[in-house]
Amino acid sequence: MKYGIIAFPSKKIQDLANTYRKRYDPHYSLVTPHFTLKDAFDADASQIDDISNKLQEISTQFTPLQIHASRISSFYPTTNTLFFRIEPTSQLETLHKTIQETLNIGASKHVFVPHITIAQKLTASEHDDIFGQLRMIGVDEHDIVDRFHLLYQLEDGSWTTYETYKLTGAE
Amino acid sequence: MKYGIIAFPSKKIQDLANTYRKRYDPHYSLVTPHFTLKDAFDADASQIDDISNKLQEISTQFTPLQIHASRISSFYPTTNTLFFRIEPTSQLETLHKTIQETLNIGASKHVFVPHITIAQKLTASEHDDIFGQLRMIGVDEHDIVDRFHLLYQLEDGSWTTYETYKLTGAE
Repeated sequence: MKYGIIAFPSKKIQDLANTYRKRYDPHYSLVTPHFTLKDAFDADASQIDDISNKLQEISTQFTPLQIHASRISSFYPTTNTLFFRIEPTSQLETLHKTIQETLNIGASKHVFVPHITIAQKLTASEHDDIFGQLRMIGVDEHDIVDRFHLLYQLEDGSWTTYETYKLTGAE
Repeated sequence: MKYGIIAFPSKKIQDLANTYRKRYDPHYSLVTPHFTLKDAFDADASQIDDISNKLQEISTQFTPLQIHASRISSFYPTTNTLFFRIEPTSQLETLHKTIQETLNIGASKHVFVPHITIAQKLTASEHDDIFGQLRMIGVDEHDIVDRFHLLYQLEDGSWTTYETYKLTGAE
């Protein structure tokens, strides 16, 4: 089964992301707007209690995430994907690294770039056109995210929540 | 903000439901297949911690739900909606009633009929045609569901998970 670890920003930011996603992201209907803490990985259903226990333990070590969606960026030329860039912080970096090293399952596919995808699978000309427009509009949203989630993927590509972890660390 | 309280059956049952939903349910992309424990209700974001604490407390009083999706039924003539009927049990009935009475927010719109929707908003002729086919195919799936979730709705109608509650009661 395929699993992923993500966090949802505020409803306000999700609604804003969806105004773009519904037009520019073919994955729009598979999961609501989020930022990924660990890329999708394969695990056996029998492993998931152990994985979940580890995530629960990690969640007690971190305070809620202070995020700032600061501008609209692109992964071009790697992929024609546009996203709300979330300013990197040592807190996000450490949480990502701790999850990756503690679970020790599935490689990190990319350098960790915290982001909320708003457009993907664009053609080259769509990418240039849409990026040109959206970069000017930009984004500037602050949020405090006090939880993250373990999801699993259904056969049609959509994602169901397995468990929620509240960030309850003292500092 | 609009909230709902639901449970997801196993991936197997969700995948099965989606084979019908993708063709017959215009809400297919808004949320993965589920059964509703409390109909959608409006609440202020400031109330949600209190609601969540109450649900957490309730979840410690119930053991995992033993469900049996036993046949394909219709809400006709109330609505042209088809669903996997989940056999009523005192456990499901009591959980539904306890959530309703403890939260004491939002009326129950209907008598509680545990179900997983697979088709809705059908025309009369679609309903009769599809129900005729699916009733013959039927469904017969057992599952143990050890958690439920509080979701909130985005402006586009899709649902994001707020919190997960594990059913940890002793009996």
